[in-house]
Amino acid sequence: MVDHTVKAFDADIGQLRGMISQMGGLAEDAIALAMQALARPDPELAARVRADDKAIDAIEAEVERLAVRIIALRAPMAVDLREVVAALKIAAVVERIGDYAKNIAKRVPMIDADGGSHRIEPLSLLPSMARMASDMVRAALDAFAARDPEAAIRVVESDAALDDFYDSIFRTLVTYMVENPRTISQVAHLLFVAKNLERVGDHATNVAEMVYFAATGTQMADRDRDGATHEDIF
Amino acid sequence: MVDHTVKAFDADIGQLRGMISQMGGLAEDAIALAMQALARPDPELAARVRADDKAIDAIEAEVERLAVRIIALRAPMAVDLREVVAALKIAAVVERIGDYAKNIAKRVPMIDADGGSHRIEPLSLLPSMARMASDMVRAALDAFAARDPEAAIRVVESDAALDDFYDSIFRTLVTYMVENPRTISQVAHLLFVAKNLERVGDHATNVAEMVYFAATGTQMADRDRDGATHEDIF
Repeated sequence: MVDHTVKAFDADIGQLRGMISQMGGLAEDAIALAMQALARPDPELAARVRADDKAIDAIEAEVERLAVRIIALRAPMAVDLREVVAALKIAAVVERIGDYAKNIAKRVPMIDADGGSHRIEPLSLLPSMARMASDMVRAALDAFAARDPEAAIRVVESDAALDDFYDSIFRTLVTYMVENPRTISQVAHLLFVAKNLERVGDHATNVAEMVYFAATGTQMADRDRDGATHEDIF
Repeated sequence: MVDHTVKAFDADIGQLRGMISQMGGLAEDAIALAMQALARPDPELAARVRADDKAIDAIEAEVERLAVRIIALRAPMAVDLREVVAALKIAAVVERIGDYAKNIAKRVPMIDADGGSHRIEPLSLLPSMARMASDMVRAALDAFAARDPEAAIRVVESDAALDDFYDSIFRTLVTYMVENPRTISQVAHLLFVAKNLERVGDHATNVAEMVYFAATGTQMADRDRDGATHEDIF
């Protein structure tokens, strides 16, 4: 590539990174606000989280347009091409993380159906799980911004702790249902909230794997792929 | 484009279509076999479904490589570019549909924990729901193969029936839990199976929307987007 083409590519990729970082920030906010809406409970805040998701979707569409334009106009090779394709795929994953936050927000009115969600004690476990999941998202996107494959490996490894947390919450919620059969419908929604948070961690793991591949050109090696999705069993 | 370039592009896009059709067939098979494994129950068949998912993942990676090569080498425009980008995105969605089948297969041993899954009557509702979801996947991929935006609209419209089915199963399962508290843990897994099938329908809907956009250049117009994800509430 001649020098001005290299600079144009750097500018393009910088713009891609900026958009993905912005999407990630919005997705983290969405998770935090959805959990606040659930804990208070605050159906109006929940409605805002649902409405704000459109902003994340809009940036994803922009990332897609820019990535396709970069591939078509600049025909990047090797690590540069891998990074543009990674940006395209990561944007799609972050968009889905936003959807999980939106889904949690949608459940707020159901869980608070009789105004009694504050009486469901296991609800108090979920904010810590949400923070853990949200931290994984931030760490995965930081690894992308820094092209840091080692940081990406740490994100993947941290998923096991979130899975354990989820397994524990799953068992706690089922026990609670058995002991409080009148709350089963509400607690079933909480099961899905916990599952959504666990899926956020899975998606952060997927992003980290994409970051690793973009930076190194090899798949994250000796990982037990089934291990990464172990939590899907519950 | 000069004539031989057009022909090369047609060959490329034909290859993309073929791979996506193959992925779709594998995903449909995976859903059908996972449901068989659940109904019998047959943990060995379930293990095979989980192992076979790797074939779907491998084709997705091939689609990605070919799509990126087409964009970089042939710089397609307008409807051609939209179709290549749609192929890239549809492959990612079909891969996730395969993951849902794998997830159902993973639950088979849990649901059959005490060898008593045949006593959970609501289990009998799930095969019909699975067929409905699987039919949507096939119809969406047929719409892609035929570049048929009208067929894509019909897929999106059919999602409402699957949502209603899911809502009904959700209520039935919760009622069953209340009346049979000792089965709550197993029935919670069935809730997730039903949810996975409902998500398969959502993903078929997403594919149909991508087909519509690729064929027409406009987003599927007067759809209520929240309507499409209404079932996410439960």
